[in-house]
Amino acid sequence: MPTATAKAYAASSATSPLAFSNIPRREPTDRDVELEILYCGVCHSDLHQVRNEWSAMPTVYPCVPGHEIVGRVTQVGSAVTKHQVGDIVGVGCLVDSDQTCPSCEANLEQFCPHAAFTYNSPDKHGTAPVTYGGYSSSIVVDEHFTLKIPTNLELAGVAPLLCAGITSYSPIRRWGDIKGKKVGVVGLGGLGHMGVKFAHAFGAHTVVLTTSASKKDDALRLGADEVIITRDADEMQKHAFSFDFILDTVSADHDINAYLNLLKIDGTLTLVGAPDKPLPVAAFGLLFGRKQLAGSLIGGIAETQEMLDFCGANNITSDVEVIAIQQINEAYDRLAKSDVKYRFSIDMASLNNPS
Amino acid sequence: MPTATAKAYAASSATSPLAFSNIPRREPTDRDVELEILYCGVCHSDLHQVRNEWSAMPTVYPCVPGHEIVGRVTQVGSAVTKHQVGDIVGVGCLVDSDQTCPSCEANLEQFCPHAAFTYNSPDKHGTAPVTYGGYSSSIVVDEHFTLKIPTNLELAGVAPLLCAGITSYSPIRRWGDIKGKKVGVVGLGGLGHMGVKFAHAFGAHTVVLTTSASKKDDALRLGADEVIITRDADEMQKHAFSFDFILDTVSADHDINAYLNLLKIDGTLTLVGAPDKPLPVAAFGLLFGRKQLAGSLIGGIAETQEMLDFCGANNITSDVEVIAIQQINEAYDRLAKSDVKYRFSIDMASLNNPS
Repeated sequence: MPTATAKAYAASSATSPLAFSNIPRREPTDRDVELEILYCGVCHSDLHQVRNEWSAMPTVYPCVPGHEIVGRVTQVGSAVTKHQVGDIVGVGCLVDSDQTCPSCEANLEQFCPHAAFTYNSPDKHGTAPVTYGGYSSSIVVDEHFTLKIPTNLELAGVAPLLCAGITSYSPIRRWGDIKGKKVGVVGLGGLGHMGVKFAHAFGAHTVVLTTSASKKDDALRLGADEVIITRDADEMQKHAFSFDFILDTVSADHDINAYLNLLKIDGTLTLVGAPDKPLPVAAFGLLFGRKQLAGSLIGGIAETQEMLDFCGANNITSDVEVIAIQQINEAYDRLAKSDVKYRFSIDMASLNNPS
Repeated sequence: MPTATAKAYAASSATSPLAFSNIPRREPTDRDVELEILYCGVCHSDLHQVRNEWSAMPTVYPCVPGHEIVGRVTQVGSAVTKHQVGDIVGVGCLVDSDQTCPSCEANLEQFCPHAAFTYNSPDKHGTAPVTYGGYSSSIVVDEHFTLKIPTNLELAGVAPLLCAGITSYSPIRRWGDIKGKKVGVVGLGGLGHMGVKFAHAFGAHTVVLTTSASKKDDALRLGADEVIITRDADEMQKHAFSFDFILDTVSADHDINAYLNLLKIDGTLTLVGAPDKPLPVAAFGLLFGRKQLAGSLIGGIAETQEMLDFCGANNITSDVEVIAIQQINEAYDRLAKSDVKYRFSIDMASLNNPS
């Protein structure tokens, strides 16, 4: 397969900083779209993968992370119908699937046994041992996995919608009609701040659950109706058995039972963060109240498009701090300390800066 | 409040054997039904409570366990309409609730904040510090918490329906129409063998998951279509991502993640056993497949009646080993080793035997 060369930032080991690198990209096939990447969001998953922190998904190096991609179409294959050269297009966490299995037929490509994630998945096109993500000047993707971007939104803030956005949107939508329901969002980071915006936009009584009193004003600005400081045991007890739904976005270890205790009878807490260590769950907490602890993983392509259209109609983007790619290692250190409001978005034109 | 004396078997501490004792029972009020107890099933909860093994529910001594009660009506209060003297009546895990809260209004008395369990709950009638259960010659219960027993069923095998029956029936019904679905039952004990009977009766492809190869023939006899020996890693892997619903009846510590791995996308595993120690749950296992870990606790009174009527219509009872009350301590030792097929049912007439 003919390949071209793209600029990228890659990690060569779990302890190496990300550094400039040239990587191969395939020439577009009939069904492919080639993008010049304009912005790429920085997801906590990027950090986990680069540092090989997920025992369930070991990292293959070099690793080029990035799965919150917005770009401009530079080439389209002859069979492509969704886009034309010049269109603004998004790519999220998925770049391939078999498109024939029951999951694909149910528009749940993320659960296809042959799904390829945007980075660190076997590259079925053979361009490289694994897929390379969006910290790069360009990417070539099957048009099925590309998304149309509403024209009214600011692109740096759109990029994080492709992962943080859909990851928080999907479980909220799946719960059902949350209008007027009491909905909690645990953690006010990249995922959490999107969860607040969506829960608010859908009319829920939105409550942010955070360890940091300093986040209160910002939570209210983002759309929360109420903020609970989770270190305050009295406050937590006051809200016991009162939540219809809780979106738990925390990927660090945390006491899940304290949050399960907040659910109403038949309530659901959905995890979208992925702590590597098992979470100790008290069975009694689930039994007394017939509660449910669920997981959710990004969303399918059709639902991602629905989310983007909803964002367009409601003027929703991620709150971002735009950085140059040369600042990425410093950004990772800050991300590890949750020191970002609320997502770094890399201006990929910076790849042309002197490094 | 006037009281009468009943015969019972009680534990006086966490390390004492159960022994004969006289206990107070209130005289029936207008709304009460008095039963002569004929059979009482022996639930694993009885053992946990007697031995004070649940940190969330410390035991008050003396403790008279037993919440799988079948008896004959000996007195009714003037306002009682459901039963007459001589009727055969059941009492399960609940003997009181406020009957006004949202849970009670939703026929979920088990979640009423003022619910009284049949033993070890504060006794709101003041007859004793806590409620005393069914290892006794008689009991007096508000008629709301009494159940009609189908006349075609053998009573020793009916008693366990009042807890083991409803506990396994409720989550299966709540899941939805399981006809033709692949349903797993983890653990083939008192709860599990009822789960198998119900899943089979509702037309599910019923699979028993057990550590003991010796239980295979019995599982098939009870209605299972298939048996998986969970120590066989290859067998477990073969069934990965294939179950619609799993009922987990194990109250000992066990690896929940191995069972979550068996669920299909969007599948649910419901815990009905209550291990005292938190269960370590791998978040990745819930995320990849959008799975749900749920809990369920017995069932409300209306659903318990529905279950009993279903048992009557389908000739379902528990498989029991009938014992005299004098054998109860030996029975507990055997129960702790899961050495019973599948429930002990105490013939309460034995309370009149010389002890």
